[in-house]
Amino acid sequence: MISHPVIWAFRTSVGCWRHRSVLKAALQATEISGWRCFSSTIRVGVAGMEEILARVVAPLPTYETRDKSPPPPESNSVEFMHFYKSLSKEDKLDFLTKLSQDFGVEHKSVSELAGKLLDNQLRDLSTILQVEDRLRYSLTPRYKQLLGHISRVENGVKFLVDLRADVLEILSSKASDSPHMRDLSGTLKSLLSEWFSVGLLRLERITWQSPCEVLQKISQYEAVHPIRNWTDLKRRVGPYRRCYAFTHAAMPGEPLVVLHVALTEDISDNIQGIVREFATLDSEEDVNKVNAAVFYSISSTQAGLQGVELGNYLIKRVVRELQSEFPHMTQFSSLSPIPGFSSWLQGLLSQCRKEGRSADLLSGHEWKEVEQATDSSPGTAAVDALRKLIGTSEWMHSERLCRVLEPALMRLCAWYLYGEKRRGYALNPVANFHLQNGATMWRLNWLGDSSPRGVANSCGIMVNYRYFLKDTSKNGALYLQSKAITASEQVLGLVSQFQKNSKL
Amino acid sequence: MISHPVIWAFRTSVGCWRHRSVLKAALQATEISGWRCFSSTIRVGVAGMEEILARVVAPLPTYETRDKSPPPPESNSVEFMHFYKSLSKEDKLDFLTKLSQDFGVEHKSVSELAGKLLDNQLRDLSTILQVEDRLRYSLTPRYKQLLGHISRVENGVKFLVDLRADVLEILSSKASDSPHMRDLSGTLKSLLSEWFSVGLLRLERITWQSPCEVLQKISQYEAVHPIRNWTDLKRRVGPYRRCYAFTHAAMPGEPLVVLHVALTEDISDNIQGIVREFATLDSEEDVNKVNAAVFYSISSTQAGLQGVELGNYLIKRVVRELQSEFPHMTQFSSLSPIPGFSSWLQGLLSQCRKEGRSADLLSGHEWKEVEQATDSSPGTAAVDALRKLIGTSEWMHSERLCRVLEPALMRLCAWYLYGEKRRGYALNPVANFHLQNGATMWRLNWLGDSSPRGVANSCGIMVNYRYFLKDTSKNGALYLQSKAITASEQVLGLVSQFQKNSKL
Amino acid sequence: MISHPVIWAFRTSVGCWRHRSVLKAALQATEISGWRCFSSTIRVGVAGMEEILARVVAPLPTYETRDKSPPPPESNSVEFMHFYKSLSKEDKLDFLTKLSQDFGVEHKSVSELAGKLLDNQLRDLSTILQVEDRLRYSLTPRYKQLLGHISRVENGVKFLVDLRADVLEILSSKASDSPHMRDLSGTLKSLLSEWFSVGLLRLERITWQSPCEVLQKISQYEAVHPIRNWTDLKRRVGPYRRCYAFTHAAMPGEPLVVLHVALTEDISDNIQGIVREFATLDSEEDVNKVNAAVFYSISSTQAGLQGVELGNYLIKRVVRELQSEFPHMTQFSSLSPIPGFSSWLQGLLSQCRKEGRSADLLSGHEWKEVEQATDSSPGTAAVDALRKLIGTSEWMHSERLCRVLEPALMRLCAWYLYGEKRRGYALNPVANFHLQNGATMWRLNWLGDSSPRGVANSCGIMVNYRYFLKDTSKNGALYLQSKAITASEQVLGLVSQFQKNSKL
Amino acid sequence: MISHPVIWAFRTSVGCWRHRSVLKAALQATEISGWRCFSSTIRVGVAGMEEILARVVAPLPTYETRDKSPPPPESNSVEFMHFYKSLSKEDKLDFLTKLSQDFGVEHKSVSELAGKLLDNQLRDLSTILQVEDRLRYSLTPRYKQLLGHISRVENGVKFLVDLRADVLEILSSKASDSPHMRDLSGTLKSLLSEWFSVGLLRLERITWQSPCEVLQKISQYEAVHPIRNWTDLKRRVGPYRRCYAFTHAAMPGEPLVVLHVALTEDISDNIQGIVREFATLDSEEDVNKVNAAVFYSISSTQAGLQGVELGNYLIKRVVRELQSEFPHMTQFSSLSPIPGFSSWLQGLLSQCRKEGRSADLLSGHEWKEVEQATDSSPGTAAVDALRKLIGTSEWMHSERLCRVLEPALMRLCAWYLYGEKRRGYALNPVANFHLQNGATMWRLNWLGDSSPRGVANSCGIMVNYRYFLKDTSKNGALYLQSKAITASEQVLGLVSQFQKNSKL
Repeated sequence: MISHPVIWAFRTSVGCWRHRSVLKAALQATEISGWRCFSSTIRVGVAGMEEILARVVAPLPTYETRDKSPPPPESNSVEFMHFYKSLSKEDKLDFLTKLSQDFGVEHKSVSELAGKLLDNQLRDLSTILQVEDRLRYSLTPRYKQLLGHISRVENGVKFLVDLRADVLEILSSKASDSPHMRDLSGTLKSLLSEWFSVGLLRLERITWQSPCEVLQKISQYEAVHPIRNWTDLKRRVGPYRRCYAFTHAAMPGEPLVVLHVALTEDISDNIQGIVREFATLDSEEDVNKVNAAVFYSISSTQAGLQGVELGNYLIKRVVRELQSEFPHMTQFSSLSPIPGFSSWLQGLLSQCRKEGRSADLLSGHEWKEVEQATDSSPGTAAVDALRKLIGTSEWMHSERLCRVLEPALMRLCAWYLYGEKRRGYALNPVANFHLQNGATMWRLNWLGDSSPRGVANSCGIMVNYRYFLKDTSKNGALYLQSKAITASEQVLGLVSQFQKNSKL
Repeated sequence: MISHPVIWAFRTSVGCWRHRSVLKAALQATEISGWRCFSSTIRVGVAGMEEILARVVAPLPTYETRDKSPPPPESNSVEFMHFYKSLSKEDKLDFLTKLSQDFGVEHKSVSELAGKLLDNQLRDLSTILQVEDRLRYSLTPRYKQLLGHISRVENGVKFLVDLRADVLEILSSKASDSPHMRDLSGTLKSLLSEWFSVGLLRLERITWQSPCEVLQKISQYEAVHPIRNWTDLKRRVGPYRRCYAFTHAAMPGEPLVVLHVALTEDISDNIQGIVREFATLDSEEDVNKVNAAVFYSISSTQAGLQGVELGNYLIKRVVRELQSEFPHMTQFSSLSPIPGFSSWLQGLLSQCRKEGRSADLLSGHEWKEVEQATDSSPGTAAVDALRKLIGTSEWMHSERLCRVLEPALMRLCAWYLYGEKRRGYALNPVANFHLQNGATMWRLNWLGDSSPRGVANSCGIMVNYRYFLKDTSKNGALYLQSKAITASEQVLGLVSQFQKNSKL
Repeated sequence: MISHPVIWAFRTSVGCWRHRSVLKAALQATEISGWRCFSSTIRVGVAGMEEILARVVAPLPTYETRDKSPPPPESNSVEFMHFYKSLSKEDKLDFLTKLSQDFGVEHKSVSELAGKLLDNQLRDLSTILQVEDRLRYSLTPRYKQLLGHISRVENGVKFLVDLRADVLEILSSKASDSPHMRDLSGTLKSLLSEWFSVGLLRLERITWQSPCEVLQKISQYEAVHPIRNWTDLKRRVGPYRRCYAFTHAAMPGEPLVVLHVALTEDISDNIQGIVREFATLDSEEDVNKVNAAVFYSISSTQAGLQGVELGNYLIKRVVRELQSEFPHMTQFSSLSPIPGFSSWLQGLLSQCRKEGRSADLLSGHEWKEVEQATDSSPGTAAVDALRKLIGTSEWMHSERLCRVLEPALMRLCAWYLYGEKRRGYALNPVANFHLQNGATMWRLNWLGDSSPRGVANSCGIMVNYRYFLKDTSKNGALYLQSKAITASEQVLGLVSQFQKNSKL
Repeated sequence: MISHPVIWAFRTSVGCWRHRSVLKAALQATEISGWRCFSSTIRVGVAGMEEILARVVAPLPTYETRDKSPPPPESNSVEFMHFYKSLSKEDKLDFLTKLSQDFGVEHKSVSELAGKLLDNQLRDLSTILQVEDRLRYSLTPRYKQLLGHISRVENGVKFLVDLRADVLEILSSKASDSPHMRDLSGTLKSLLSEWFSVGLLRLERITWQSPCEVLQKISQYEAVHPIRNWTDLKRRVGPYRRCYAFTHAAMPGEPLVVLHVALTEDISDNIQGIVREFATLDSEEDVNKVNAAVFYSISSTQAGLQGVELGNYLIKRVVRELQSEFPHMTQFSSLSPIPGFSSWLQGLLSQCRKEGRSADLLSGHEWKEVEQATDSSPGTAAVDALRKLIGTSEWMHSERLCRVLEPALMRLCAWYLYGEKRRGYALNPVANFHLQNGATMWRLNWLGDSSPRGVANSCGIMVNYRYFLKDTSKNGALYLQSKAITASEQVLGLVSQFQKNSKL
């Protein structure tokens, strides 16, 4: 249910695809050259870069005159933006490397002040505070001022968001691994965090009366359950549906993070019931049939805002909004995809085959059924048959196989979500997102997404992360601090079945 | 023409009055208790303060977990806001003192990291950068996080703006002079600077169709040439007038800085022609009569945004706006008051009387005229007579005295504006503001403001600071860096007359 | 509670004043010369009028070519409007007389077709229908087309509204009594009725965020309980208050009829509690304290829309609006003034004095009390004393007189409202308005309006006309068709006391 | 360039198709059952119809009480609307027949008053006027009041527009030909004409920022040059394009008539250059390249507004709008299709073949070329060959045939547009529309529309009707009154070639 580039946009193949589509959209909107897309531009000489950087990135004023430095002419910022946009991908890398290395923090001043501070231990508090303030100031990278000036120019904030997307891609693609580049990313992130602070965001409900420009973007950005046509789009903003987005004054007409909600009688266990339900188009909402809000898609649209928390805040704002519209509503839950489950499973099968531990995955009885259904001999052959079944989604077309595989896939999936970790946190990015928000891993839904994509990615299983409002604060803190996952009995039961079977 | 609280709001009596009116307005809007105004509230025990601070101001997470700390529940911020607003003036002082002292930077961590950095001199750049980043993080005051959380709550940004206004008044009234309080002010300023960055501001043209809420505020905030009634207000947003304001998404309906412009045939030399001109109310603008834009009033409305540059950017945005509406327009100028001139003059007269240097101020011939007109004997008596004339504005009613005093007052005034300095910059705050913006001290206007207030404050003299667009960048930098004032021949001529006469 | 110009704007002195203020407002907005106000304009020759009328009022096309007549150039309409606006009051009278007489229906065609129709009695239905249609067409006044063309020009609709106001004033002031002028008024009314049909009106809630232009008009148009200043105005659109208006696409920014509502715990019996209640300004509404909606002022703003029903529809729309905002609300009532009661009473006293029937008005005991309190002898002197008391409102300052007069004034007032008629309908215009709408004459309130104006107009008495929603349809029809007034027991009791006393 | 249902929607096949698509759109929006589409509804008994009509269509009040009749409860109108919408097509016909026959004008009253009027000839003018007014009133059909009440109910105006569309289709399909039905249509038209008077319409520019709801309708309604997808739609509201619509307060979100304009350097002679020009999507408009405004599509969307002039006013308003945006623009022209030319030509060929007058159409030389190209023998066979060529659009693929046929088709087409008449006016509905507006038949464009549809309908020829602003008033009147067509030399030259050849 999430395509949160914050976390996984650059790792999985879906993420990659997604990122490109986002970039492409950004391109159409602002004509900023993307990373891999255009490299036909003539390469700029190093001398040109140095010249322009020396000219537009002014030295940091002294501490004393820091409030007396006049802003540079706006043309400075505009020149920088135009120059950068005209660069090829390779030149951008060179340019950003130069910028981050040669126009960062002046280490000499820093260490001088550090020395002073140590001396100052003996003296009065007032002096200590003053030296600390000077030290803090000296830790400002020289380029930070320029970034601030750019933010004031028309489309400047969008430029910086896209600049950070470039920096992030450089870092994640290992094109550069310099600590200076990481510093540049950090400086950009801290600036963007202030500018995109939640108090400055506007919640907008998207309806069929919203500007076409915005709806077209909503349509483009929806990667989780792609929107096929006008009718499909109209339904996603029509009766029994809500679509909300955060927008920002400095990037008008640009939804930053989008949340799709279905208003249902019970918490949905199937996505097709939401995105293919044709009857709803013209009907009027019957408030008595609205008991639950199901978040069935959330998409961040700006790769450059990775690490700037928006999705969490959006869900919370939307919950408040819905509570004021439907005071009696008490059930809030996601209906989420499980990207990566199938490939994790394939990896596991492959490993078990190698290690001959296939009994860890399926019970003897289950293997027997697989063998019969696939007409394969026990052992390696059966594992291969199973891998093929999952790789091709063929099992879906056999009622028998469905019946056989259901318990096995459900407990494997429960383990994947609950037990597989990365640095102690849930490996699955969607799970990690909702658990951070304080949701409970509530219910796995067999055949929750029977679309080819759903079957290919997660054997058709979907999961509800449920938001029990009075517990989210506590759950979120628990997860973030102790890495403990709150889960329902269904999920814990499946996990324990898995553990029993695999003797883990 | 300016009531820029940034600089003088707390010093002159006009400033004081103004500040109170602004506070009062703020009070009406947000019900936040002001500083001096309300102290009837029951004092809160120190223990209560400590308890609440300990609870809501969370410790800074470790550097490693800084991105993993969940936001505290919103109720935390709301509680802090309510508690603070309920405090009496005295309690606020205690509370802020406690907050700034006990919940600021942890000096021990800072000095440890400073020590590490000095050690690290020997090691690789990557480590240095990492330690610098940790050092930077350790210089974050503990309360900074809380301020960030408050900004996300409804009306939170406005609360912080008003909080800073309180801190500034504590500092300027010498109620406290602790370096921690200054640190708190600095932290608030840096946060507000990011949130009120120009890229996030919206330029709004205020017209008679604007919401009444906004127009009422425009009316209240206009301290320079007070608005008397609806008709007066309607005229200031009517034909041949423009009224622009910056607003901010987080403070809807609240103009932050307001600029009034008159569209004229020539640069105005008289304010009554602008604010009393009744004929314009229903007429339609004739574009051929619009050659000049005269900025006749600029007001910052938020005391808490002192030091966050808005006025300068507003003037520049408005110039662009006007150029696009009137492509042929080439003259841009302020018509500004000269607050403080009369009291400076009284001080000078008093001093000269004591030192017997009256000849420095008026020529022998001029003194003679004064003596005759006031029927006083030469020397001390004449000086006293002149002081009384100026103190009572009586000279205005005598045509003869007007004629006599004009050259003297004009050259004294030119000196006051051009020659009197504070830390090297123009003493007069309005002059300082426009000179920083890159304007030229262009023309002194005799009888520019014949209102009782104008005569009392500046002997009726007004001044135009003219914006020659191609020079403002250069002029502004020159003034800020070399403290050099760009002035016209008229002004320089008057200054040199003053110098010749007073042998300075 | 009503200043419904529809009915009484031109008869009472308040009406006159009101009309002028409305006209003045219209003048400011559209610069149309009012009736009595400006007559300095030079008189236009009769020849000029005839020339322009002949030119711009095109002949009616033949029946056959009626859909083939091209619209005249817009300049035609504009010329007519400018010409008319430039005329003096006297010239307008001449001009409208000429227009209505010489450019009306062509009687010859009408009577020819009437003849044909009588012939046609013998022939088939199809022919009859055709002749009827021709007859209908021939009854179109020639000027009607021009009026239609004018409505399409900018500000044309407003011009026609004001034109009809002029025609109405001519008729009501007996400046003309020609049947042609009445025809012109009727034609205008029928056109305006279509254009101002309720389906084309927009309900707007007026708040402090509404455009200043609109709020200023709301303030000007409120004649019932005049608005004194910004604070007063702000309160009337603030918490526990609602202000609604109908507007029309062709007259943007112009409220046509305005309804002020107070949201209260019980149906109010006193207007000062509504318009002087200072506590409400900043408080938030507590939905549990809102049980009743009290319509305390309704004003039609366009004299030219007399006879075009708007107020009735506005009340009904507002009731629906309030029901959807406060589903539990069940009490809807006006709190209305009783204009004309005092002067009716003075007339009655005068007549009784002449006819020596003073016992019809007050009982013996009551007269005795009046004599004692005023120190007057019985009979004529006591009547005179009472007349003086009422004329000067002095009785209000004596507690004793208040006590003495209350029962007498209450039963007289009940009779005035319930028993005094004009063509069978209630004489009092406000009563007539609410009774037509289907309201019940519900409660007379002693000291309901203690303002000088309230005491002078209606001895301080006010009345509630209550809207019992399920009965209004029935009541309205009953009143309009059988002239029967629905009243509460309190009112009927007072009426019967009056009848008993006066032997009516 | 026009699909003006006003005139031809029900005659040509394109019109039929168009009408249905419009109806379908209306259906989606308002759920009103269309004519042919749904007839599955159970038929309602005649008794039911009579009962409901008798109940909701109140008798006309007497002349005396006409202003005293209270409006019926709104539920009356709502019931009527629901009942009507629930009827099958056949039942609607019955119902409307009943309504128009039994609830129309009361002929007895009319003829009585007609008699009175003839008597009255002898008496005074005042009485005549009064009787005329009564007569006028008596000519009101009883159902007219109900229609007025319906217009006040939510969606009532739209209901009446669609009701009239039904009535028109009944009349045009000859399902009924009763004079009463025509009266009902006329009554509806006159009411709608008042409500949709131009002064009540709002001009809206449609852009990519307009609500999606509106843009989707624009897309659906565009029948002339169908819109294929989002990109296509975006381009039609993007740079170098303008899209305007009239909307009405009573039908929000519903464009009534839509005009598409291309901003070009010269008056376009080819439609593909406008609707397929991909380069323009993201470019910025260069004002220097905008010399001409080409109206390339105008569509009326509401069949029920036939005869209510909107298109003409829209073109004129748009011209004013464009002139204020581009003061230097002087060329205004349509680029219009010529629907019906091909089928007219086929008819002509067929007739000439029968009458052996083929020489009237093509010259001997031209026939020879046709014979050679089609390998057919002279005479009948050649005519047949030509008919086949035109019927199949095959000639377009042969360069030779194109060259051969160009002069013939051009002069035939010129004649079709200029010489073929219906009741004296141009037979071609698009020509008739623009000529009524005062445009000049300016230029025929060979290969103006090379799309399959363009070739099939009009042999690929398009025509410009040019608007010379200072002449349109005069031209329009001339055409409407004397049926004279203003045409350019090119057109007149072609016409005269045709005449010479065909000896007409």
